[in-house]
Amino acid sequence: MKQFNKKEITKKSVDFNRWYTDVILKAKLADYSPVRGCMVIRPYGFAIWKRIHDILDKEFIDSGHQEAYFPLFVPISLLKKEKKHVEGFSPELAVITHGGGEKLEEPLIVRPTSETIMYEIYKNWISSWRDLPLLYYTWNNVVRWEKRTRLFLRTTEFLWHEGHTVHNTHKDSLNEVLKILSIYNSFYKEYFAMPSVLGKKSDLEKFPGADDTYAVESLMTDGKALQAGTSHDLGQNFSKAFSIQFQDRVGKLQYGWQTCWAISTRAIGALVMTHGDDNGLVLPPKIAPIKAVIIPILGKDDKKVLSLAKKIKTAIDDKKSQFSGLVEIWDDLENSFGWKANEAELKGIPITIAIGLKEASGEKSISINRRDHNGKLNPTSSLSNVGDRVEEVLIELQVDLYQKADDFFKNNTYQVDDYHEFKNIMKTKKGFIKAYWCGDKTCEQKIKQETKATTRCLPLDAKDKQGQCICCGKRALEKWFFAQAY
Amino acid sequence: MKQFNKKEITKKSVDFNRWYTDVILKAKLADYSPVRGCMVIRPYGFAIWKRIHDILDKEFIDSGHQEAYFPLFVPISLLKKEKKHVEGFSPELAVITHGGGEKLEEPLIVRPTSETIMYEIYKNWISSWRDLPLLYYTWNNVVRWEKRTRLFLRTTEFLWHEGHTVHNTHKDSLNEVLKILSIYNSFYKEYFAMPSVLGKKSDLEKFPGADDTYAVESLMTDGKALQAGTSHDLGQNFSKAFSIQFQDRVGKLQYGWQTCWAISTRAIGALVMTHGDDNGLVLPPKIAPIKAVIIPILGKDDKKVLSLAKKIKTAIDDKKSQFSGLVEIWDDLENSFGWKANEAELKGIPITIAIGLKEASGEKSISINRRDHNGKLNPTSSLSNVGDRVEEVLIELQVDLYQKADDFFKNNTYQVDDYHEFKNIMKTKKGFIKAYWCGDKTCEQKIKQETKATTRCLPLDAKDKQGQCICCGKRALEKWFFAQAY
Repeated sequence: MKQFNKKEITKKSVDFNRWYTDVILKAKLADYSPVRGCMVIRPYGFAIWKRIHDILDKEFIDSGHQEAYFPLFVPISLLKKEKKHVEGFSPELAVITHGGGEKLEEPLIVRPTSETIMYEIYKNWISSWRDLPLLYYTWNNVVRWEKRTRLFLRTTEFLWHEGHTVHNTHKDSLNEVLKILSIYNSFYKEYFAMPSVLGKKSDLEKFPGADDTYAVESLMTDGKALQAGTSHDLGQNFSKAFSIQFQDRVGKLQYGWQTCWAISTRAIGALVMTHGDDNGLVLPPKIAPIKAVIIPILGKDDKKVLSLAKKIKTAIDDKKSQFSGLVEIWDDLENSFGWKANEAELKGIPITIAIGLKEASGEKSISINRRDHNGKLNPTSSLSNVGDRVEEVLIELQVDLYQKADDFFKNNTYQVDDYHEFKNIMKTKKGFIKAYWCGDKTCEQKIKQETKATTRCLPLDAKDKQGQCICCGKRALEKWFFAQAY
Repeated sequence: MKQFNKKEITKKSVDFNRWYTDVILKAKLADYSPVRGCMVIRPYGFAIWKRIHDILDKEFIDSGHQEAYFPLFVPISLLKKEKKHVEGFSPELAVITHGGGEKLEEPLIVRPTSETIMYEIYKNWISSWRDLPLLYYTWNNVVRWEKRTRLFLRTTEFLWHEGHTVHNTHKDSLNEVLKILSIYNSFYKEYFAMPSVLGKKSDLEKFPGADDTYAVESLMTDGKALQAGTSHDLGQNFSKAFSIQFQDRVGKLQYGWQTCWAISTRAIGALVMTHGDDNGLVLPPKIAPIKAVIIPILGKDDKKVLSLAKKIKTAIDDKKSQFSGLVEIWDDLENSFGWKANEAELKGIPITIAIGLKEASGEKSISINRRDHNGKLNPTSSLSNVGDRVEEVLIELQVDLYQKADDFFKNNTYQVDDYHEFKNIMKTKKGFIKAYWCGDKTCEQKIKQETKATTRCLPLDAKDKQGQCICCGKRALEKWFFAQAY
């Protein structure tokens, strides 16, 4: 019989990084693999990715996008067509030199991202303004050779979607960039219960080849920021490099206006860090692959207890609500009750319902254990309304998790006008710092070197009067978000 | 305004191979790419793959399987662990020699299939009989370096799922092998309207590393056979090579019994060839991504016609039946009516409903054009029951397509006892030949050399009295299916 020892997980407060890795391995989200820097996504982790896939996929389709599939390999000559793009990705490439037993005439790279291979084909499909907008996306795997890797956050191979669109005008393409950013933000807010700031990246931090990069920036509970999604305004950089041209309504030849955007398996790392605690994962109900687990305490009169378990499951399943997902009954005899209760906690299942003979005989009401309450303040219910009560508790839990994360976000976002204070915050508690920056790269790099903080973004809704750069004191027009980033 | 010329598609009877490629390119299922042997799957082709994914994925989940994700790369030393496996795949490998700007100490190969990388990890997850069965599958991309490639049928990179399971006993693993084979067969029959023969492969034709390979073999309309799905009994070959061991119920250490199975994007090639005609694709309603298209003939009084189009769409959409998918109205002014009607044919959309002012004013009933009838024998309907009628016609079409394919299958399967006749059939009309074979590789290879026919399978339901080998005349226990194969 399996026993579980909570001490196996390092406390979050003791060593955040070890806690993070412990939770992922013990909750069986992922595992290491024999290939350096590549991980295995185990079924429980993949079930979360599938939820992310299904939710976002529907958003893309509903907003008029179409899925397609493009080759894994990119001839090295194609990658070189956009100068800044190849400079950005060159250090991270995996190179195929041999195929079918022979040396290749031209080496192929494994796609680190698909701009170049896609746009070389796009040009054949676009000739008139009638062919636009072209709104394609793809779910695939990409490879970026990483020196230091961490489960989900930074792996040599990762899964993602990448959207690549072409438009008639810059007004249209910018509209697309911001629409996708808004979809990403709403997704994280609604499903991940994770607040973010939306904004534009600095030149140093933007995507290689983009005119502008917009990002969803979130704050992890160790005070570091994580870029959770990006949407790029590519302008006409790639369309000029790849000759993506169309005849406009008056018959004039124009270059297409392009965008690209992505969210990757890194999002799962953000989910772990945003809500997890010393006992393991805490999953918001709307993203959790299992929404409730019923654990019968088995002894004599098992049948009565099992029968109640089934009735509870049916009552919950019958509520076909916004909470898609499964209710499980853990009634195997191989594992102890204690192990199961710990396993449910470890896996962050939103609700656990433990029932024994007292509940089965009606002596005691059914206790609905919310994952975040750790056994305290459990709501109770009778069998007749357990379906409704579970739905209510799931909604409350979803709201409360967002509230808690939002409080953390607000309590750890500092308005700072003094560089000494800036340094001090970054040295001690970290978090987001809102500060004036003049826009000069020299200041940006100096701040990074001295504090580890980078510019995260210029918020979309920034309405600042002008002030003085936190670093050089010169005139600065806007306050930027700074943080140490993952 | 786009005009369409049917002559762009080579006639099936004139040149089957060119017809096949023409249909795929013109219907925009796929396109060539700048990477040799790799294709692009365009949105319409990908929508079919998504249907295949969604249907099979549900089957796998309902039968207790779980999805996971494993690395794209395999260290070359791992691939070498199972002798026959590495021999089989060596000629087809893509090799990564450089990563992150440096030469790798050990080259990596891009997975041609994932046995070796998965089983090296499986061994860490399995220690007791309680951990079994382990029923995992994954949807991914694999690479096999091919000299001659054809869209969907044989491409250097292709998409598939691969299932990899481990069991306590051979009885259990063989049961899994046959269960999956049955799922594949039912899928092709029910959704693809494609008949098949199920059976065991010969030693020459089986999967490198398997004890036995079972396959779904189908007959294309050019008389060649296509292996549309495989399910492998791996015995203990890999578990011994990778030390996948478990303690059984009495505490004894045993090697796991394994299976693996797959269906790839090649299935779409089979779909094209089974039902397509000189006008393009013909898609069975249950697999078609678009089940009906309404084409309004626009002139004066457009509003009336468009209003009827919307009413028809609503009537069909409201019938939430077994036919998932979309109804589209093609009412743009950019393309002519003729172009749209041809496009609907080319794309194999099961039903086309063309409506004009006569239908809108009630003078004429609504004509439901079945794709396979090419304009003849169209059922008609009033607006009040068009939803029901379309559903009925879709069901009839699905049944009729299967019947037609099954007739073809039966009419082109020959029982042959004479090698001269065998050669003659393979030279002229091709098809499946059922013939006695002694089981000797020499005969199998001689037949292949002289007729291009290979053993396709020994049918599962074979109940033959013994006879004489078609090639050498010696005693043969069973009749095998032979054919020239894709």
